[in-house]
This record gives sequence, C-alpha cells and structure tokens, in this order.
Amino acid sequence: MEQNDTTTIEMSAMEIHKVAPPPHKTTLQKLKTRLKETFFPDDPLRQFKGQPLKKKLILGAQYVFPILEWGPNYSLKLLKSDIVSGLTIASLAIPQGISYAKLANLPPIVGLYSSFVPPLVYAVLGSSRDLAVGPVSIASLVLGSMLREVVSPTKDPILFLQLAFSSTFFAGLFQASLGFLRLGFIIDFLSKATLIGFMAGAAIIVSLQQLKSLLGITNFTKQMGIIPVLSSVFHRTNEWSWQTILMGFCFLVFLLLTRHISIRKPKLFWISAGAPLLSVIISTLLVFALKAQKHGISVIGELQKGLNPVSWNMLHLHGSYLVLVIKTGIVTGILSLTEGIAVGRTFAALKNYQVDGNKEMIAIGLMNIVGSSTSCYVTTGSKTAVSNIVMAVTIMVTLLFLMPLFKYTPNVILGAIIVTAVIGLIDISAAYQIWKIDKFDFIVLLCAFFGVIFISVQNGLAIAVGISIFKVLLQITRPKTVLLGNIPGTRIYRNLDHYKEALSVPGFLILSIEAPINFANTTYLKERISRWMEEYESGETKKQSELRYVVLDLSAVSAIDTSGISLFKDLRMVLEKKSLELVLVNPIGEVLEKLQRADDTKDMMGPDCLFLTVGEAVASLSTTIKYQIPTHV
Amino acid sequence: MEQNDTTTIEMSAMEIHKVAPPPHKTTLQKLKTRLKETFFPDDPLRQFKGQPLKKKLILGAQYVFPILEWGPNYSLKLLKSDIVSGLTIASLAIPQGISYAKLANLPPIVGLYSSFVPPLVYAVLGSSRDLAVGPVSIASLVLGSMLREVVSPTKDPILFLQLAFSSTFFAGLFQASLGFLRLGFIIDFLSKATLIGFMAGAAIIVSLQQLKSLLGITNFTKQMGIIPVLSSVFHRTNEWSWQTILMGFCFLVFLLLTRHISIRKPKLFWISAGAPLLSVIISTLLVFALKAQKHGISVIGELQKGLNPVSWNMLHLHGSYLVLVIKTGIVTGILSLTEGIAVGRTFAALKNYQVDGNKEMIAIGLMNIVGSSTSCYVTTGSKTAVSNIVMAVTIMVTLLFLMPLFKYTPNVILGAIIVTAVIGLIDISAAYQIWKIDKFDFIVLLCAFFGVIFISVQNGLAIAVGISIFKVLLQITRPKTVLLGNIPGTRIYRNLDHYKEALSVPGFLILSIEAPINFANTTYLKERISRWMEEYESGETKKQSELRYVVLDLSAVSAIDTSGISLFKDLRMVLEKKSLELVLVNPIGEVLEKLQRADDTKDMMGPDCLFLTVGEAVASLSTTIKYQIPTHV
Repeated sequence: MEQNDTTTIEMSAMEIHKVAPPPHKTTLQKLKTRLKETFFPDDPLRQFKGQPLKKKLILGAQYVFPILEWGPNYSLKLLKSDIVSGLTIASLAIPQGISYAKLANLPPIVGLYSSFVPPLVYAVLGSSRDLAVGPVSIASLVLGSMLREVVSPTKDPILFLQLAFSSTFFAGLFQASLGFLRLGFIIDFLSKATLIGFMAGAAIIVSLQQLKSLLGITNFTKQMGIIPVLSSVFHRTNEWSWQTILMGFCFLVFLLLTRHISIRKPKLFWISAGAPLLSVIISTLLVFALKAQKHGISVIGELQKGLNPVSWNMLHLHGSYLVLVIKTGIVTGILSLTEGIAVGRTFAALKNYQVDGNKEMIAIGLMNIVGSSTSCYVTTGSKTAVSNIVMAVTIMVTLLFLMPLFKYTPNVILGAIIVTAVIGLIDISAAYQIWKIDKFDFIVLLCAFFGVIFISVQNGLAIAVGISIFKVLLQITRPKTVLLGNIPGTRIYRNLDHYKEALSVPGFLILSIEAPINFANTTYLKERISRWMEEYESGETKKQSELRYVVLDLSAVSAIDTSGISLFKDLRMVLEKKSLELVLVNPIGEVLEKLQRADDTKDMMGPDCLFLTVGEAVASLSTTIKYQIPTHV
Repeated sequence: MEQNDTTTIEMSAMEIHKVAPPPHKTTLQKLKTRLKETFFPDDPLRQFKGQPLKKKLILGAQYVFPILEWGPNYSLKLLKSDIVSGLTIASLAIPQGISYAKLANLPPIVGLYSSFVPPLVYAVLGSSRDLAVGPVSIASLVLGSMLREVVSPTKDPILFLQLAFSSTFFAGLFQASLGFLRLGFIIDFLSKATLIGFMAGAAIIVSLQQLKSLLGITNFTKQMGIIPVLSSVFHRTNEWSWQTILMGFCFLVFLLLTRHISIRKPKLFWISAGAPLLSVIISTLLVFALKAQKHGISVIGELQKGLNPVSWNMLHLHGSYLVLVIKTGIVTGILSLTEGIAVGRTFAALKNYQVDGNKEMIAIGLMNIVGSSTSCYVTTGSKTAVSNIVMAVTIMVTLLFLMPLFKYTPNVILGAIIVTAVIGLIDISAAYQIWKIDKFDFIVLLCAFFGVIFISVQNGLAIAVGISIFKVLLQITRPKTVLLGNIPGTRIYRNLDHYKEALSVPGFLILSIEAPINFANTTYLKERISRWMEEYESGETKKQSELRYVVLDLSAVSAIDTSGISLFKDLRMVLEKKSLELVLVNPIGEVLEKLQRADDTKDMMGPDCLFLTVGEAVASLSTTIKYQIPTHV
C-alpha cells in the first residue's frame, strides 16, 4: 500500500468541537433496540422485508422446512454422491451407535434406533445439509453417568431406559425452548478453553471405562473417576482375559492406524470411516469361527429385529425422578447443542452460508422430542458431511434384516471403536496455542480437565464455566485505568506505560477508564483514582506544576448505571475540596444522556468540563500552565 | 476559563505513528500486577514504605489497633462531647436493642447484651470513631426469619437461641475471612438499586410484623409474606384490643412527629434520639399506674439483671443444623457488612479520611465472633456518630441496675419504635432518581422490592442480585459496535448516530468495539460485523465507492482471550474471500501482545493493517479512493 501525500489536514489547536447530546429516543425505542440486539442480532427476518405476500408465504414455509429450499434443486448427480457418502457414514454410524449406547449404559440397539429416526427429522427441519445426526460420545457418557448415580442400569434396566428417554425428552424441550426464546447465546458461555479441557478429560474418562471390555473384566467399578477405575483394574488382574486383550490390542492398533492415515491424507477419509465396520465384521467372523465366546470373550448377544418401538408411554413426566431427568436433560441438551452448533457453524463458514443458531436449536430440540417417543436417546449433529436420509435408510435396512449378524460381535471391539473415536477429542495443539496466548484461559482449561478426571464429569464442567464467568466478572470489578500522555507533535494521547515516547502533561492527570462503570466497580474506581492523584503528588511531574485538572477519558466506557453516575458526583465533591477540576472527555451517547439527566444543577456538564477529545481539553484548559507542543510538519 | 490561542499544532496528514509493542513483562510480573490490582487496589501498606524499623513497628501496632492512633490524642474536651453523644445514643440504643431482638424472635435482653460487648470490641479494633455499633433491623429480620423456617422460637426457645449465636459466629467468621482474604469487593455486588428496593421491601415486611403488637393480636401468623400477614390480621379482628391500639396509635404519632422534626432541623437530632426512651418510660409508668397489663396490654415481663452470660458452650459448630447456621451466618453477615461499610465510607468521605473496607470487615467479623460467645447476635455499625465506649458503659449500667424497670414496658411501644426506625429505610426520592436515570436499574429495584414482599426476604435479595449480575453479563454478551464517521475538518472519528455532522468515509467500514472481546461475545461480534457489511452494501455509501477496508477501532477493547483472538483470524478469512482488508486501530498493550503471539505468519499485524488512530489509518489507506477533507483553520 502506498502512502498518499495529497491529503493534508491543518488544524488550529483552538478549534474546540462541542460534545453534542445524542439524538433523543424514547425509553420504548431504546428498549426495542436493546431487545433486538439481545435476541435478534442476526436479524433473521430481514429476507421477508419488502416482499409481496405470496413470496412471503413461500419464504416462510422454506424458513420452517429448509428441505423445501434445497429439495426442488435436488439432482441425480447429487443423489449419486449422497448415496456414496451416506453408505460410508452409515458403516461408521452402526458400530459407533452400538458403542455409544453401551457408553450410556443402554442396550446397544438403542444406539441404532437413535441413528434412524432423528436423522430423518433433522433432514426435514434442519438448515444444514452437511450435518450427520446421531448419538455422540460426550452426551452419552454424561447421560449414563448422571442417571447411574441414582438408578442401577443392571438391577433396574427398564427404569433406567425410561429415565434415559425422559431425559432425552427434556433435553429436546430445553433445546427447542432456548431456540424459540432466542436464548441460544447461553451456549457461548462454554468457552473454547473450557471445551478443550472438558473434552480431553471426558475422553480420558471414556477410555478408562473401556478398560472393562478391553481387558475382559467382569466385576468392574461403577464409578467414573480415574482413581477408582485404575484401582479396580489393578485389583482384578485375576479377571483379565488374555484372549480378549490380544484381540482388543490388535484391533485397536488397526483402528488407530487407519485413523492416522486419514488424518495425514484427508482424501483417504473413507479408510477410517470404513475401518470400524470392517473390524466388527472380521471380529464377529473370528468369534463365530473359533467359538471364542466360550473362551472368555464376551459378545453382544441377540438383538431384536425391527424398527424403533414407540416409547412415549415410557416417559416420566412427573413423579419422584422428575428433578433428575430434567437436570440430566438440561446438561446433556447443552452439551449436545454445543457440539452440533459448533460443527454446523464450521461447515457454514467453509461453504460460505449463514447458520441461524437459534433455528438450529429448535430443529435439534424437536428431533430429540420426537426421538424420545421412538426409543432414541439424546442425539446431535456430529462431524461428517452426509445425506441424513441415505444414512437413515441404511440403518433401517440394518434394523430390519441384519440384526442377527451382531449376535457374535465381541464387546472388546466396541471398546476399541470408542477409544479410537474419543482419542480425537484430545486436542493438544489447541491447548498449547491457548497456553501461548493466554495463561488464564489455560488455567480454565486445566480446571475443566482435572475437574472431569478427579471430581466428576458434570462438576468439572460446572467448575470451568464458573471460573470463566468469574474471570469476566473480575474484569468488570477491576477495570483498567490507564494514565495517558501526549505523543509529541500530535494531539494523540496514549498509555504512558505502553508508549515510551509519550509525555505526561504537567498540571493534568489524564486517565482513561476502560470498562462500563457500574455497581460492581464504582468503589474500586474511586479508590484507584485517588491513588493516581496521590501518585501524581509524590511523582516527578509535580515539580513542574501543581495538579490542576483530573481529565477522565470516557471513550471506552460503554455503559453506566446509577451507581456509576454517583461515582462522578462523589469524585467532583472530593476534587472540589482539593480545588481540582474534573473534566470529562468524549462520553458516548448513553453515558452523556444519563450524566445530563442526573446533573440537576447543570454545573457538572458545563463547557469547561466536557470535551470531545483529550487533546482539545488539554489545549483549551492549559492557560495558566505553560505548555508548548513542538510543531512538527 | 479562557481559551489559549498561543498553542498551535500543525500536522501533516501523512505523519503516521507506529503502533509500538508494549514493554516486555514476564508472566510472573503480569500476574503480580493483576493480583495487586484485584486484592490490594488501595495499597494498604504504602505508609510503611521507606520507614525505619521502629516506626514500622509503631505503625503496625496502630494498623492492627487503631485505638493506639487516636487514643494518645484524646482530650478532656473530646471526652465531654463523647459523654453527651454517648448518652444520647444509648437512650436510643436501649429501646431499639430490645425491639430488634424481638424482631429476630430472640429474648429482648439479647438486644441489650448485643449493644454492650460488640461496641467495646469495635472501639479497640475498628478504624472509624464515628460508627455506633449494635443490632440492626434488616439483619435481625433475616436472622429471625431464616431460623424460624426450621426451628420454632416459641416451642424450642433454647435451641433457637443456640442457633442464633451459632449463626452470629459464622457471620463473624465469614466477615473476617472476607476481609482477611481481601475479597471485600463481594459486597459491591449488592448494587445501590438492589439495596434501595430490598430495604424498602424489608421495611414493609418488618412493619407488617409489628401489627401483631400494635393491634394486640395473640395468635398471629408465623409467615412473613404480605398476604398471609394481612389475612391473619383481618381474620382475627376479634382479638384486636382497643386499649393496645389506642396506646400504640398515640405513641406512634408521637415518634413519627419527633422523627419528622429532626429530619427538618438536623440540629434537633436529640429529639428523635430521645423520643423512644421517653416513650418507653411514659408507657411503662402508664401501664404500672393503670394496671393496664390486666386490660389486654401485653408487657415485656421480668428481665434478668446482670451482664452478658458466656455463650460459647451454646455454639453448634457441627451436627444437623450446621448447614442452616452457616447459610444464615453468610446472609446476615453480608447484609450487616453492607450497612456497616457503607455508613463507614459515608463518614470517611464527610470527614475526609480513608476507610480500608477489608480491614473494617476483619474488625466487624472479630466483633461478631466475640459477640457470639457472650450472648450477642449479629451486630454492625449503624448510622450515628458516637463514642462506643460511653454508649457501652451506659448499657452496662442499665444491665446491672435498671432491668426491673422494664417489667411493665408494653410490647406495643416496641412495635411503634420499630416501625418508626424502619420507615426511614424507604427512600422514595432515591428510587425516583434511579427511575429518572436508568430504567433497567429501576427494574432491579422493583424486583428486589416485590421479591421481598411477595416471595421471601432472602429470595427477593437473591433475585435482585441475580438480575444485576445477569445485566452485567448481558452487556458483555452483546457489546456495542458503533459505526464511526469523520467530523469534517478534523481527524476525529465519532459515532455516526450520535454526531449528526460526522460523515461516513466511502470505501471504509469503520467500527468501534466497546467491550472486552471474549468467549461470551465472539459469536455475536462475528454476526454483527457481517451484518454491518451487508448494511454497507445495501446503503447509500456504496454508490460512492465499493467497500474496501473494514477498520476496527480497538481502543475500547480492554481485554481479550483466546476465543477473541480466533475471532480476528476468522474475520480475516471471511474478508479475504470478499477481497476486503481488515485494519486494526490502537489495540492496547495486552491485546496487541496476544494478537502478535497468535499471529504465526506475521501477516495479520503488518504495517498496513495496524494503525495508531482511525484518522491515520484512513489517510494512509485512501490512495485509490478519492477522499478529501475540507481544510479548516
């Protein structure tokens, strides 16, 4: 970029610009703007503006059922590619569905049911064509562990299943309500650092649980923490089965290898997608041929043929377990939303289209509500591009005809598949990047990680979210106040600490306040400003001139409340006692308006106390203080 | 103030100032600064700096026991004025102590005990000579109502008393720990609006409770809400006693009248201070003379002579009520701190000395811990200037010799005294001021008020605090982005909406982001910035020039985290697809540093993308876009 020497600005130092009052708005108008920015920041209905009625109706139908938008443009070519990708993903979804259901302490077939109905619902209602829908590891783990704290899945399997469906119902209800009430921003409170730490911790917890099937232990601990699991593993060495370990080890190496290849060469994606199904087939044949189930290798056993049975009569919508299922529903609902929305947004950014997060939430929520009445548990969008319809049809065929084939599938393979799937959740390079940029975020990450591993999955998450919010509140409670100085030859004022060439102006204490001023920080600001004054009194600048003016640059004060207003009143009183003057610079519209409304006597906001820039304030006020800026052309 | 025409600045438009990297600091140094600002913003130990050891020891002793600081300067003249004010306040403290103890469902004498030991402890440890110490209405109400939810004060008075002392112990422990850990800023989260609403609601609840003694009802409801109390009052009209009502009405009018006089003429303060004791004396004499206790006027009854009995053996520090007393202790502890610290600060501001809030909390906390072992319940500093020692001595004399005189004091007088005291907590003019300045703060006020009246005292407070914090979080989740324009003839860029004379610059989209950028708002900011771009595309400015540069003024971005960093990476990617350039202006030190650390390829922070002011960025980049500012001298 070249520099343009033709534009020249000349300014008289004495040209003082008035601070204008903001244009008048009624409380109602302000409320409207505020509500719009809070709940409709993406202005989802703008496409409807100025359209004729018929067009509006069509757009409305397409808005509710996005399938109407892309359906008519569907072509044979698209169908062909969809069939290929759908089959590939189905071959991944079948073994993963079975495995994740086991992770949630549910019968394996529920995992397949959950890969059939929800994708069909999402295909009609969801706005992303690129999102494969099904159960995911984190939500499965959390659902299973939260319910298991109250009900045993082995002693009371029917009740456990009922509670899982009920939780799914409430997860869906919660998700849909969030979207409908446009409160989707709640999931933003799970920061990146929190999620990376949480996912890594959960991946380790999940992997540890798989030691049960990988080592062939029958009496495994019911707890999730790292310590009880490891102690359970090493106190039961007598139960280890070498056949199981050998088989598990071989297939685990095979799966990890294919995963590694696909990461290196993304074009060979189908290798890692097909490997789980291949492992299932080979291991099943092996067990069948060698009658290995009689030599200590546990197998899935009979699976019932047929499509999803109705389950709406199994929902617990009242009674003693209501609090449990609502809590479980909310936690798993938020977790699965986080995953689904994040993946959806990534695809949208890649393919350059917009995703309305709130609308997606409604779609995912309805999908789970329907799912809970058709024997599915919590599902969401996961990582791969796919046609959900083709995938669902493949699952349907499996459910109708292929179920007996799973009878001899060994559980150890499911363990290996889960480990391979969750290992991808441990993102060390992202963690390193966070360490490099922001140490505090890294602490949040560690809290989430160790909280999940040593305390519990839900509490680890809660702790990390708590710390993130606490950090934000702390920033507000302790806002930065920065001492400004003049950059020689300009009217620019910048942080004296940061810009070493900047010079402080004798007689002036120029402070920039860098946060909204509210009840949480007025006390601090008052104390901090009086400390700045004391520091001026004891510093070098004092020798040149006594302090005369305290100039507060309010450019960065984005909001103020009544406590903040009284801060200025108090400050003025304190300064008057010391015969100092308080000068305010560039308050933004809202702040200016409130200051004026509170200033009954009209002496706080006079022309000598209010300026548009620090430069103008200093130039205008430095009459008695000899102050010369070297000219500089 | 005159304007100074001798200072002239001339600037070439092409003088571009480099954005300097901030001076290097290690993570440890940064952490130190951060911790200092968070926990020691008032730098409490600065007076020790550079002093010789002996002086340091003296200062240290004075720091721990402020009495050593003012004690040696104590004079006969001060003693005389202290005796007068001490006697005045004692005459207020005796009837108020008895009344507040009844408000807390405690025996009246506990109120007198609580006005004896705590003032003495505070006189030694506290830093304010102007704070009278004793029980206060709000903490009494909350203590009584929280404990009464679990234990009945009439059926199980000993247990109730034990729980009250235990709660006081934990209140003191909590207060002292807050101060010791320098977490005193927690009480700042009770905003002014919350407190005004809460106080007004509590005053009404307290006054309603007094209907029991004012109307002479014997079977009164145990609940606190406005509805059960009023229904109880009107369903028991048969219990109303006209003698009690007549007496209560007369004294209430008398007390309110004296209060009114003292408000009008603050010099006649002693009138309202003496009125309660006078009422007690007159009414006691009346009852005694007329034998009115036999005509339906209930009286206090025998009070035991003697000083505070030891009560440390009554503390419940374990067992089934532990959770209750800790909870009650924390709530009453915070409430009484809020009152004590606020009053202390007001006096400090009036008399121009500093109050170290955290140190005050330690003093108040120790006072309550000592109090809990000497039959006192929660106390704090309340509104009046006084010598605590003189007051305590007066109470001591009362406890030792005057107790039998209270035998015939009618309860109706205590009710009238409480109503008169709490009516001052309803501050309508402050509420109106808040309504005028900030409608949202007023909503918080109303929530606190109606929450207290219709739900419960604790929940009303919790709701209001929750809403206040939610508002702050909402501000962060939805930060302001403001479109800037050039004020003609200057290099100043200001909000286009606010400054009507400002002009947008064709080819540039200049946005100012006015909040820290973090996980809670990156998604919103991304959506909002792309909406601004769409608005540019469909607006007037586009006709003059295609959009070329998106300029983000980061002056007001006081902090950033890793999610915020990735916002810039994502934005750059999106803009590159549209062949737009992202230009950053004036990031503050911390933000600049993190951006540089994240910018591995060094292409985001090049000299063409980073400027010190918006003016310089526009001047430097507008080579291809014809752009002329009218000169203006």
